[in-house]
Amino acid sequence: MIKRNAFIISDRTGVTAQALGNSLLSQFPDVDFEVETITFIDSKEKAERLQQQINHCADSIERRPIVFATLVDDDIREIISQSNCVFFDLFDTFVSPLEKVLGVESSHKVGLSHGMQNASNYATRISAMNYSLETDDGVEVDRYSRSDVIVVGVSRSGKTPTCLYLSLQYGIFAANYPLTSDELASAKLPEVLSSHKDKIIALTIDPFRLQQIRQERYNRDSYASAKQCQYEIAAAEAIFRKEKIPMLNSTQMSVEELGAKIMQKAGLVKSI
Amino acid sequence: MIKRNAFIISDRTGVTAQALGNSLLSQFPDVDFEVETITFIDSKEKAERLQQQINHCADSIERRPIVFATLVDDDIREIISQSNCVFFDLFDTFVSPLEKVLGVESSHKVGLSHGMQNASNYATRISAMNYSLETDDGVEVDRYSRSDVIVVGVSRSGKTPTCLYLSLQYGIFAANYPLTSDELASAKLPEVLSSHKDKIIALTIDPFRLQQIRQERYNRDSYASAKQCQYEIAAAEAIFRKEKIPMLNSTQMSVEELGAKIMQKAGLVKSI
Repeated sequence: MIKRNAFIISDRTGVTAQALGNSLLSQFPDVDFEVETITFIDSKEKAERLQQQINHCADSIERRPIVFATLVDDDIREIISQSNCVFFDLFDTFVSPLEKVLGVESSHKVGLSHGMQNASNYATRISAMNYSLETDDGVEVDRYSRSDVIVVGVSRSGKTPTCLYLSLQYGIFAANYPLTSDELASAKLPEVLSSHKDKIIALTIDPFRLQQIRQERYNRDSYASAKQCQYEIAAAEAIFRKEKIPMLNSTQMSVEELGAKIMQKAGLVKSI
Repeated sequence: MIKRNAFIISDRTGVTAQALGNSLLSQFPDVDFEVETITFIDSKEKAERLQQQINHCADSIERRPIVFATLVDDDIREIISQSNCVFFDLFDTFVSPLEKVLGVESSHKVGLSHGMQNASNYATRISAMNYSLETDDGVEVDRYSRSDVIVVGVSRSGKTPTCLYLSLQYGIFAANYPLTSDELASAKLPEVLSSHKDKIIALTIDPFRLQQIRQERYNRDSYASAKQCQYEIAAAEAIFRKEKIPMLNSTQMSVEELGAKIMQKAGLVKSI
């Protein structure tokens, strides 16, 4: 396997640089990357120290490291780009063409995308996160009228991580409701959900995977048995199909994928 | 204010495209962007329908929309790029130069960065999130030896959102501990924290902002009074200073900024 060193460098949180840098590196599965993320490079002094670090890395491995950078300040970017590296400018590559297209200059201010510039949007995300926490696992069902979406499924099908991700990433008010044994046995949607049916998204999961997850966490006899997991999933899916509730399978989907699918299925618009 | 339409288009979750697209747009505060994010464009048929939608938008506003795309498939990218738009290829712009530098072809597979390709890394993130939830607000302190970081501060200083963000974004096991009135009065670090002092990061906040947050949520007399908030912050900061605990101020910092600063201060490496 080929080995390469890579630096992901940002003047602020590195969230953008990591998202794109890691996406790009994931396209080269045959290369073994050693990636170092370096954030808050917001002064010439820090940039100069980092330049030395990159040069030192290049010397020691006798190969230029790959650098992905989102650096808004021209001077700082210049210092990093002059280190002994292959420099990919994830941000500035697009800023100049955008200036031409839009006919205005860019602000050259750092930290505009993952900071608190828009205080009301940020407050919405935090409120959404509090809402998701407070309505987790079927509590406070009387607050469902405020929800954007209600995620329903059996215990440990992935509801909580999905709802917290939806709230933090998109500012979505996402409640979740676990179907109990009694509700599954009744073969119909609980009354508390019927009045919010248009907001419900169902999660299902492969029974074998469900069994694994339950066993890892609470290895109680019946709860984590193959029979119980198979029964619960079959009963839950029957309800979802009968009630025509959109269903997602969390077995092979990350919270990012579940979140994006729910946004799409529920016709939700990112509120941040 | 100039108005422009923009599309952020992805073949998967859109997480990468949104991060960079929104970062770029944030550099143009004088332009009023109407942004539409469109995810899971993973077939030619979807791409062709989207091409029509973009063309229709261009016709109706008599100006070409700006398109930011992360599309791995060449055919799909071709279809979108031929719509009546200003096309910015956030991904492919860097893939070809990277192929040259690395001397290998890219995999051209979609969904490698925010899916579940690395199942054990993904499991770590979900375990970290469960850990953060289960140790939220000072419970299960006997599990602190498993923590990567323990966030300490007064009630409503921003501990919970920060810990959940750290776990979901970075796979960090982040517990949080609220300092109670008795602990603040004792002017020293609670015993349960002393043995984990090297893992502690303190959050502080402007007392006026703290008062606002507390009033919005639980408008109880003393808890949300100016006097109480001022007292708690002064007492907490005195403890942190005395114990030389690194302190971050959450008043003007987003969870992304707090998370990145904590990763930096605690010398943590992203485990995903």
